[in-house]
Amino acid sequence: MRITILLFTLFFSLSINAQTDSALIKRIFDEALKNGKSYSNLDYLCNKIGGRLSGSPEAQKAVEWTFKAMKEAGADTVFLQECMVPHWVRGQKEVGKVITSNSKGIKEVPVCALGGSIATPAEGLTGKVIEVMGIEGLKKLNKEDVKGKIVFFNEPMDPTFIETFNAYGKAVMQRWAGASAAAEYGAIAVVVRSCTLIQDDNPHTGVMGYKDSIVKIPACAISTNAANWLSNYLKTDKDLKFYLKMNCETLPEEKSYNVVGEVWGSEKKDEYIVVGGHLDSWDTGKGAHDDGAGVVQSIEVLRIFKASGLKPKRTIRAVAFMNEENGGRGGKKYAEMAKLKNEKHTAAIESDAGGFTPRGFSSEGSVQARMKLKSWRPLFEPYGIYSFDGEGGGPDLGPLGEQGVFCMELMPDSQRYFDYHHTAIDTFDAVNQRELEMGGAAMAALVWMISQYGLN
Amino acid sequence: MRITILLFTLFFSLSINAQTDSALIKRIFDEALKNGKSYSNLDYLCNKIGGRLSGSPEAQKAVEWTFKAMKEAGADTVFLQECMVPHWVRGQKEVGKVITSNSKGIKEVPVCALGGSIATPAEGLTGKVIEVMGIEGLKKLNKEDVKGKIVFFNEPMDPTFIETFNAYGKAVMQRWAGASAAAEYGAIAVVVRSCTLIQDDNPHTGVMGYKDSIVKIPACAISTNAANWLSNYLKTDKDLKFYLKMNCETLPEEKSYNVVGEVWGSEKKDEYIVVGGHLDSWDTGKGAHDDGAGVVQSIEVLRIFKASGLKPKRTIRAVAFMNEENGGRGGKKYAEMAKLKNEKHTAAIESDAGGFTPRGFSSEGSVQARMKLKSWRPLFEPYGIYSFDGEGGGPDLGPLGEQGVFCMELMPDSQRYFDYHHTAIDTFDAVNQRELEMGGAAMAALVWMISQYGLN
Repeated sequence: MRITILLFTLFFSLSINAQTDSALIKRIFDEALKNGKSYSNLDYLCNKIGGRLSGSPEAQKAVEWTFKAMKEAGADTVFLQECMVPHWVRGQKEVGKVITSNSKGIKEVPVCALGGSIATPAEGLTGKVIEVMGIEGLKKLNKEDVKGKIVFFNEPMDPTFIETFNAYGKAVMQRWAGASAAAEYGAIAVVVRSCTLIQDDNPHTGVMGYKDSIVKIPACAISTNAANWLSNYLKTDKDLKFYLKMNCETLPEEKSYNVVGEVWGSEKKDEYIVVGGHLDSWDTGKGAHDDGAGVVQSIEVLRIFKASGLKPKRTIRAVAFMNEENGGRGGKKYAEMAKLKNEKHTAAIESDAGGFTPRGFSSEGSVQARMKLKSWRPLFEPYGIYSFDGEGGGPDLGPLGEQGVFCMELMPDSQRYFDYHHTAIDTFDAVNQRELEMGGAAMAALVWMISQYGLN
Repeated sequence: MRITILLFTLFFSLSINAQTDSALIKRIFDEALKNGKSYSNLDYLCNKIGGRLSGSPEAQKAVEWTFKAMKEAGADTVFLQECMVPHWVRGQKEVGKVITSNSKGIKEVPVCALGGSIATPAEGLTGKVIEVMGIEGLKKLNKEDVKGKIVFFNEPMDPTFIETFNAYGKAVMQRWAGASAAAEYGAIAVVVRSCTLIQDDNPHTGVMGYKDSIVKIPACAISTNAANWLSNYLKTDKDLKFYLKMNCETLPEEKSYNVVGEVWGSEKKDEYIVVGGHLDSWDTGKGAHDDGAGVVQSIEVLRIFKASGLKPKRTIRAVAFMNEENGGRGGKKYAEMAKLKNEKHTAAIESDAGGFTPRGFSSEGSVQARMKLKSWRPLFEPYGIYSFDGEGGGPDLGPLGEQGVFCMELMPDSQRYFDYHHTAIDTFDAVNQRELEMGGAAMAALVWMISQYGLN
């Protein structure tokens, strides 16, 4: 009998809580959708500051602006975390040309240097082209087939993945590691098919890396339309040449900052829940979806709590990480400081998958915490958020995850993300206001649940 | 013992089926995402034909093109269903002006006639303005407050509805019924806030109706930016006047057609599953999301079955309905013919909520069929389709539903729909290829399940 009463009481109090939480989560969404500031903040970040690669003056302006924006959102305190960042610059716009060996003459094609690449010689370089499907395709060749040539990595993203990040994860290897792989075979440069699922004229940049012991060769991205054309043309004109001129350069490292704003917890002020995005972006566009969205949503989480009068038990920390794109130094610095100060982190959530309608949260950490996270699904389903099974925390949270912190990433609808990713068209007008606002609200709602109940 | 074996066998065969269906549904999505034709078809429909209001030459062109497109998709047969449709024309572009009673002078504002409205006198009309919040707001006034004035219906859509169609359903009443309601109070015209959740300069048209016994007065939509400006300005300048000139006209009814294409069932050829969208659109834009998307997705269902070699047990009918926007004559005609021929319809699915990422299906009909539909959810969740609880079949399916047919509507993500709905910016470039393709695949997958298992 006693156990029945206990169970009944437990059930009853759980139901009451679920009702209260449900009402509070509605309050959060209402606040975001009625009075949201993330959209106007993103407008400022994209259109008044613009693209903000680490080490650039725009990145510094973005740090200063974010500091103010967090204050305006009502943060109880805002501070900076200094870190050194790589400073790579694109220089003058790149030139790519296909020089046919027949009557078609010369065709200029849209290319852009991959982040971290060396430049070509000042006069550019010219070479015959050999097309391969990813690094696996390269490895099927003999060195004499490749020597002195430009390797054209043309593996497309697989359109049959529903979650487009899975297709990206597969195709991006040729972008990241293609240059050194090709250099080992004697190539003089690499031209890499843009990582996107659409056919258009925008080259997609993104970071690449060199192996230490291998000679460095220039690496560029080419638009998918141009890649398709080149691939077709190569079938009948194997002697065509490619001309490439890039003026990029790696300068000495610069001082930069993470920006951190807090809303203090009412009961456990020294326990932190991080919500974050990254403040740096590629230089070709305005960094709207990647990742202005994540930054303004994180600021919005602070604002929502203050504006709607919700008192979190634990402290919420919005973090605008610096240098996700080409170094991850901000994420490392944050984790380093957390360890140094022996801070207790209950959880961390990143938004770095675009300002699209939220669909769920992926996570990385203890099974117990994952189970608890998943048990909250009924509270999120009325907002179209139903997916809690994905694996992975956010890219800036990796170092924190290594310290055992439970890390999550907001998973928005991914169908459009790679249309814009790392291109000139990742601009403010590519972001829909409601979709952006709902992402911020989803993060705030999850922060609410974690701040109240923890994840153990 | 026997029952155990039976249950085991049943369970085993169900699992096998689930595995087979899961694989077949993947085949459907793969086909749509790799070889889909819905996007290029939509390009043609929007950019080569354009807006296609019932009775227009473009609507006739769309009928002829759809006939060919269904043939090309591999339909076993394509035929037309004749129906008479209203023929309303906009005439010369409308003019709306706010004439302030002070130094601000005259401000031109974006307006457009609501579908079905009468024109103003040739020289336009001018009147003082009285602002109300919906028809309820109007009813709070006295007739002498309204008489001789222009009623400005300014109830906004409520942004806190997550499903934006629910917000639309509430706010649209002032558009549909506002003119006659205001005329009963002696108004000379109505200006209606556009049904959208964004603030911009596009007026949103849409159908309105007159009560038979009430004098007809002109009705136009005004953009949300202009509505906000007017509302604010009215606070200090109550004597401002509004000038409106509209040249629209209702012409005699025209002959038009539904276009119907079939893929025949292998076992129950005389049992039909309808997939449809509507072929007519408003004239201001190109009818891309509303409802070119639904038409090309329905054609795509036929193509997917043919191209992937799936043999449905029941016959699939793709229907491009005519005249959803201002009469629903195509839907009525289809149901009338179905009754006349005593056709057995297993189910009907419409896509008329835009070419956005699919999220679920709403439905209307027997509880048993709803339960069965819902039991298939696990097969759809890998594609982000998780919502099977919504109520309602498609707008063209109403008359079929009245005959007892189980009707469903594809529910895509609704956050962006009312940005484009009934405006000049409902154009091809507002549609994302993958989102459109996934909607068609979702319909094909559901058709597969119904064609194999029925809904009883």
